[in-house]
Amino acid sequence: MSDKINPIRETDDEARGLARDLLTGAATAALGVIEPGSGAPFVSRIAFGLGPQGEPMTLVSDLAVHARALRADPRASLLIGAPGPKGDPLTHPRLTLRASARFVARDDGRRDALRAVWLGHHPKAKLYVDFDDFHFVLFDIADGLLNGGFAKAYALDANDLRVI
Amino acid sequence: MSDKINPIRETDDEARGLARDLLTGAATAALGVIEPGSGAPFVSRIAFGLGPQGEPMTLVSDLAVHARALRADPRASLLIGAPGPKGDPLTHPRLTLRASARFVARDDGRRDALRAVWLGHHPKAKLYVDFDDFHFVLFDIADGLLNGGFAKAYALDANDLRVI
Repeated sequence: MSDKINPIRETDDEARGLARDLLTGAATAALGVIEPGSGAPFVSRIAFGLGPQGEPMTLVSDLAVHARALRADPRASLLIGAPGPKGDPLTHPRLTLRASARFVARDDGRRDALRAVWLGHHPKAKLYVDFDDFHFVLFDIADGLLNGGFAKAYALDANDLRVI
Repeated sequence: MSDKINPIRETDDEARGLARDLLTGAATAALGVIEPGSGAPFVSRIAFGLGPQGEPMTLVSDLAVHARALRADPRASLLIGAPGPKGDPLTHPRLTLRASARFVARDDGRRDALRAVWLGHHPKAKLYVDFDDFHFVLFDIADGLLNGGFAKAYALDANDLRVI
């Protein structure tokens, strides 16, 4: 039975707008990576934001499991959108991104611009942004899956998800 | 430099209590799975709760990406604990579980008890709990990583995480 049902609706401007709103409004994300060695999935919370060109990004410590994992295998998945306090949380919109992670080297010419935008949205990060073990990571989006609530799923490509 | 630092603290009763509080209080989780075919990570939101013996569980539709993925590869990671509205979200406690998923068949003798407990905590699920494509999934926990805030990480084993 399930094989005959396609639960994905046709992508429209409302879906694109909702996805972009989730991207613009998120300060955190759940990051999924592949753990080196075991190959098992691993999910952790990261700070999240958009860079000067709207590129999804984070700031991570090399001490974190997810940072070591992404250096070994850049494939990442990001879940964005927090459930609200009322009603069935599965009716609240959320967005899964399939992406690839790129670490920004300390001497990369883009770092100053990324740092400025990041601290604008995450002012408390000024306490650790310049620690030796912290690095910015940019996520190149392959595609996304928007779940706008029960039976409201949409597949989105990288263009649908472009904020700027 | 980073290689010389072990960011994991010794597990104590405070850490165990915090982890159990997160497990008991969670109505949703971010679930990480391995996508069939690509082998890439995929994170989505699921409803979350504890069964009659305190076993972590969810209710999923076979139409969902994560259900198909778990049927192909039961390895799962669950992120539990929502960031609060104030302060740096990375200072708010969260728990990552490494687990293995077991689907509960419709004719499994435990289903009635799981269903009763589930609907007690997720009353809105009565709208779809008995749909043909919905199944309960139990998570056997291997271990966990608690992040109680900046520089407060703890490794927890399955016993540390036992609620009942």
